[in-house]
Amino acid sequence: MVQQVAERLILVTNDDGIDSQGLKVLFEVMKEFGKVVMISSKEGMSGKSMAITAVNPLRAHLAEETDDYKVYVTNGTPTDCVKLSINSLLDKKPDLIVSGINQGANSSVSVLYSGTMGAVIEGCLYGIPSIGFSLDSYSSKADYSVCIEPVRAIVRHVLNNSLPKGVCLNVNIPALKAGELKGMKVCRQSTGNWEEEFVKRTDPIGKDYYWLTGKYNNHEPNAEDTDEWALSHGYVSIVPQTVDMTAFSHLDKFKELESYEERKIG
Amino acid sequence: MVQQVAERLILVTNDDGIDSQGLKVLFEVMKEFGKVVMISSKEGMSGKSMAITAVNPLRAHLAEETDDYKVYVTNGTPTDCVKLSINSLLDKKPDLIVSGINQGANSSVSVLYSGTMGAVIEGCLYGIPSIGFSLDSYSSKADYSVCIEPVRAIVRHVLNNSLPKGVCLNVNIPALKAGELKGMKVCRQSTGNWEEEFVKRTDPIGKDYYWLTGKYNNHEPNAEDTDEWALSHGYVSIVPQTVDMTAFSHLDKFKELESYEERKIG
Repeated sequence: MVQQVAERLILVTNDDGIDSQGLKVLFEVMKEFGKVVMISSKEGMSGKSMAITAVNPLRAHLAEETDDYKVYVTNGTPTDCVKLSINSLLDKKPDLIVSGINQGANSSVSVLYSGTMGAVIEGCLYGIPSIGFSLDSYSSKADYSVCIEPVRAIVRHVLNNSLPKGVCLNVNIPALKAGELKGMKVCRQSTGNWEEEFVKRTDPIGKDYYWLTGKYNNHEPNAEDTDEWALSHGYVSIVPQTVDMTAFSHLDKFKELESYEERKIG
Repeated sequence: MVQQVAERLILVTNDDGIDSQGLKVLFEVMKEFGKVVMISSKEGMSGKSMAITAVNPLRAHLAEETDDYKVYVTNGTPTDCVKLSINSLLDKKPDLIVSGINQGANSSVSVLYSGTMGAVIEGCLYGIPSIGFSLDSYSSKADYSVCIEPVRAIVRHVLNNSLPKGVCLNVNIPALKAGELKGMKVCRQSTGNWEEEFVKRTDPIGKDYYWLTGKYNNHEPNAEDTDEWALSHGYVSIVPQTVDMTAFSHLDKFKELESYEERKIG
């Protein structure tokens, strides 16, 4: 039986802060699918990964409320937003969690640093279908309208089919014009890394400080089954993502360690 | 050819801050294996996951230096510590990165939130053998001596055999007395989640705030191949961990989405 729009509760969050363009677009599209609770921080939380706030108190201010939606502003990270919503702010468990639309891609290993995906992984750990959306542009003038149709199609699919236990989706969208997308591709996470160059400067009282800068290094630019390849060839990339980081294919390699016997040192 | 101790460079970091007991123990043991650079933050960075510092400048103060080791104190997260060390502070790439010994276990899904493991994953992305160590006790009076022999054995194994590309180790040690360990077990990450209860309070000017508290909910307490089972039965758990979060066994489930054709909305 298909759930009615009015019965459905959707939690919307992000890591670029409450005023970001991508969040507004996602919020508007999600209203087509159910009642929406939107929660985000005042300031940006990019690169916060799955950080949680344990040593400081969290705040959540109800900034707007209608029959169809609520908007909360917090001082928390994206993962905090999901935890706080599920445990304290919402009347019931949400049917779907969406995060984004992020300013900049979260493909390849960027998923590990991403606050956007931190919220998604947290939702997944709670057993809630969770999807992260990112646009492959860091420009503050980026046009998010290209995201609208893919977001609709993927959300519709997930609402109809749910997601396997322990699996969430990491969706990245090329910064093209609406109508120019080649299609969608189900991909694996590309292997690569960020190569940092720290800009070293000296402050007015003579102490050094460093600014983090970096460029992404794709280890396999020609691998057609990767998210990086899809994105750079005009496709929306969809990576089904697990929360289990076990390297299953390497478990046997370490069996030798099990023969260890503790030397009595006590 | 076995590398000489004097030629070997080991980077030591953690997420509990520079003054933590577990870091000191790890630092002392690592000196047996090579020259050591230790870097950590003044304040604790627990629960920082793979968070990076992009909007603020990083500082690194050389607090101590001998022929055999250096100690840096930073304002960065554990992941920042690894990035900054490799790119700006160290003369050469380290041969090994160890992180910990954390106060409290990082087994099961805690690995996702852990700053200790954030440093380890970062090291792994740089292609450097990287190991995280945690003691299963949150007590500030915990006795880390039980960790010394397992740390030695695992470090020796990794220095002799290296680690597969894209694989790091997450090691958790039961809070027993030295000599009481049953052995070591190679495990998979247990499935579970943290169930939060936010303590809601009202501040003196009448505004609500929330404290994050939680308890771990093990979804499979009887699964003998998991890290949680090993830990609770007196074994050191060793989880070989991947940095690739693709849910490979579920790629086919989403192929239907590839038949999507963008409606012309531009």
